[in-house]
Parts: sequence; structure tokens; C-alpha cells
Amino acid sequence: MTLKLYFAPGACSFVPHVLLELSGTPFEPTMVKLHKGEQNEAAYRAINSRGQVPVLVDGDVVITQILAIIGYLHDRFPEQRFLPTEPLARARVMEQLAWLNNTVHPTFTHVFMPYKFVDGTEAQAQVKAFNVGVYAKLLQELESFAARAVAQGPWLGGEAVGPLDAYALTVLRWGGIAGIDPERFVTLWSQAQKLAKEPAVARVIERERLQLNLYKPA
Amino acid sequence: MTLKLYFAPGACSFVPHVLLELSGTPFEPTMVKLHKGEQNEAAYRAINSRGQVPVLVDGDVVITQILAIIGYLHDRFPEQRFLPTEPLARARVMEQLAWLNNTVHPTFTHVFMPYKFVDGTEAQAQVKAFNVGVYAKLLQELESFAARAVAQGPWLGGEAVGPLDAYALTVLRWGGIAGIDPERFVTLWSQAQKLAKEPAVARVIERERLQLNLYKPA
Ligand SMILES: N[C@@H](CCC(=O)N[C@@H](CS)C(=O)NCC(=O)O)C(=O)O
Ligand SMILES: N[C@@H](CCC(=O)N[C@@H](CS)C(=O)NCC(=O)O)C(=O)O
Repeated sequence: MTLKLYFAPGACSFVPHVLLELSGTPFEPTMVKLHKGEQNEAAYRAINSRGQVPVLVDGDVVITQILAIIGYLHDRFPEQRFLPTEPLARARVMEQLAWLNNTVHPTFTHVFMPYKFVDGTEAQAQVKAFNVGVYAKLLQELESFAARAVAQGPWLGGEAVGPLDAYALTVLRWGGIAGIDPERFVTLWSQAQKLAKEPAVARVIERERLQLNLYKPA
Repeated sequence: MTLKLYFAPGACSFVPHVLLELSGTPFEPTMVKLHKGEQNEAAYRAINSRGQVPVLVDGDVVITQILAIIGYLHDRFPEQRFLPTEPLARARVMEQLAWLNNTVHPTFTHVFMPYKFVDGTEAQAQVKAFNVGVYAKLLQELESFAARAVAQGPWLGGEAVGPLDAYALTVLRWGGIAGIDPERFVTLWSQAQKLAKEPAVARVIERERLQLNLYKPA
């Protein structure tokens, strides 16, 4: 078996995890327990010096960064049409993927791991609180995009399930952790439920033991 | 003239600005004065609701996000080979571009605009100081990558000047603003100087009136 994915349950590695499962190719899903700090152990740092998931291993090749892995899997499984091939449609999907990756995802990191951005418990609490507010606005912006996209649909990137759908489900689910009820975002929530029923996605959700709505009212 | 780029001098829009100038195609460089808040005026928000540069306009099409614009310009000017076409080489470049875009660039934003991440002048000062330290480490990591890349070279993405070179110059130059002497990073500094002498790049640097080393010893 040549393909291997290092993933953590519920983390952003859900995106390539879904693509690999959709591809129908055998691969080795390898769990990294982030809450136990396994990403910082020497063995894992030797694979990814940045100590993060996801990592895709394809034979001798090691690829990090969600966006690079998406492009690589698109090229490796062209029949899956993970990304549109027409340049403008591709740019539209990349625009949202890039924004999820450079803005939405890092905003959640401020909520979940504020110590990556500032020292001191008080300042960390302030960073966390501020970014919960930012995160709610970003999810609303993603909801507006999703409502427009689904009007063409049926998926966020067009006719095939793709990385945008998996990334949207992930950041929506994180909303629950940040104290933002995901069901508030009608389109995102119904897309996530529809996605969760796709057989390949259902297998990933079962392997990662994910619950879609983690929100607990205060 | 159908192609238009909204840019700000010294901002991350330098990346597509360089690609457009390299393409040899006429385009309309349109300056947005960020220090005057023009990105937040209604006229600009109508073009990019997120109030940021870069924005590429190609006839009726409006594209935001550096990574999406890079992919679009690669498809539009295939003869320029802005990105490698071989999947693994492409993934290698995308990996670094994504990391610059989701990690290095946002870390500088914490230094330059800490108010985007926390309220209160004290917490903002703490966020800024912390991220100056992170930024210095990230530039060192980029330096190590550059040293390896240049051994194959001559450019960071291979044989042709590309987006990685322009992005590396940009974040290195920002180092000076963050109080980190860019000349400390031997490979990055020599690549930046070499890049600045490429005729197309020299035209962009002149148009944006950029100085490469902005570092002022304390
Ligand atoms: N820029 C990376 C970010 C990856 C990332 O944020 N991974 C998180 C999980 S969602 C992680 O591994 N965090 C563990 C840690 O930082 O200690 C990418 O796009 O792949
Ligand atoms: N995620 C965007 C980031 C663009 C960005 O950070 N633009 C900055 C200049 S480097 C900007 O326009 N800032 C103005 C502001 O935020 O007010 C991209 O990759 O294109």
C-alpha cells in the first residue's frame, strides 16, 4: 500500500481524508493524537517538521499543506474531478479554498490554540474571545457564498463532491467548539448533512468518530 | 485594455504584479492607498467586499486571493511557466506558496495590524511583540528552504522566475518593517537582489517605489 494519510479526528485533515476515500483507492489512514502531543514527538517531526496534520505520503513522496495535497490528489485521480478543469471555474474554487485556508481556518486556531499567538493567560483569553466574534462573521460569509453556490450546485464547487464541501463541513463543525451553533447557518448545515450521507464521507466520519453538531448552549 | 490589477505598494499584491509584468501583456496597474483606508471605501468594497488587495480584473471576471490569481495567470499565460506542470514539482511549489499565504503572511499581519486579532492597546502590543519573534523564526525556515531550492535553482520554484520568488522577496522586505534585518538571511537576500534586477521586476519595483531593506537598527 503506497498511499498514507496522517490525520487527526475532526482536524483539517478531514479534507484530504474525504478525497482519498472518494478516490476508491486503498490507502492507510494513520491517526495522530494531537491532544496527546504526538505531532511534537521526534518520530512525527521527522515526517513533518512543522508538527501538523495532514501529511500525505505517496511512496517516497511526502506532501504537507492542505492546498498542495488537494492539487496533488486532483492530478493523481483526474477522473474524480476534485477541482474544475476550466480555468475560471477552477479560480472560483481556489479563491474560496484559499480564503478558508488563510483566514477562516487560522481564525479558529486563535480560538482553539490562542497560545500560538500571544503569551499570558489574560491576553490569550482576549485573543480567544475576539476571534470567536470574527469566526461567527466568517461563517456567515461562508453561508452567503454557500447559498449562491448551491443555487448552481448541487455541491459547493459544482457538480462533484470536492474539497470545498469537506472544508466547509470542517469549519462549520468547529463552530460548535467555538460556541456557535452550526444549525444557525441553514445552507451550510443542510449541505453538511447531505455530505455526511455520501457513502465515502460516511466512512470517514465513522473512522474519525465525528459528531456534526458539537454546540452546547451556555 | 482588459486586464487590471488593484495593488498597494509593498503589499502582497507584489506577487501578481510581478507575474503580470513578466507576462509582457498590457495591463492597468491601479493603486489602492491602504494607509488612507481606500480599501474600505464603498467603491472598492463593491469590487472586493473583503477590502483587500490584490484583485485581478479580466474583462467581466474579478478574482481575489493571491493563490487563485496565481493559478489563473498560470492558465492564462502557459508559456510563462509560472508554475511547474509536472504534478510533484507543482505540489512542491504549492506547498511553499500555501505556507507563505496561510502562515508567514498572516504572522506579519499580526505585527502590522494587531488590531485585527485583539482589542485593547496592551493586548495588541503583546500580540505584536510575540509575532515579531514568530516571524523571525519563519523567515529562518524560509531561508533554509531557499538554500535547498537554490542548490537546484536558479529560482525558488525551479528554472523560471515565479510566484515563490516574488512572495519570498515580499515577506523578506516586511522583515525590515518588523525590525528584522533582511540581510541576515543570506540566500533570501541574494535571491531578492537578483530578482530585483530582472527587467520586469525592476519595472514593478520602480512603479511601487520599493526599497528592499527597510530595517532601521534600534
Ligand atoms: N497550514 C496547514 C495547517 C494545518 C493545521 O492547522 N493542522 C492542525 C490541525 S487542523 C494541526 O495539526 N495542529 C496541531 C498543532 O498545531 O499542534 C495546512 O493548510 O495544511
Ligand atoms: N488572503 C488574502 C490576503 C490579502 C491581504 O492580506 N492583503 C493586504 C495587503 S498585504 C490588505 O489588502 N490589507 C488591507 C487591510 O486589511 O485593510 C490573499 O491571499 O490575497
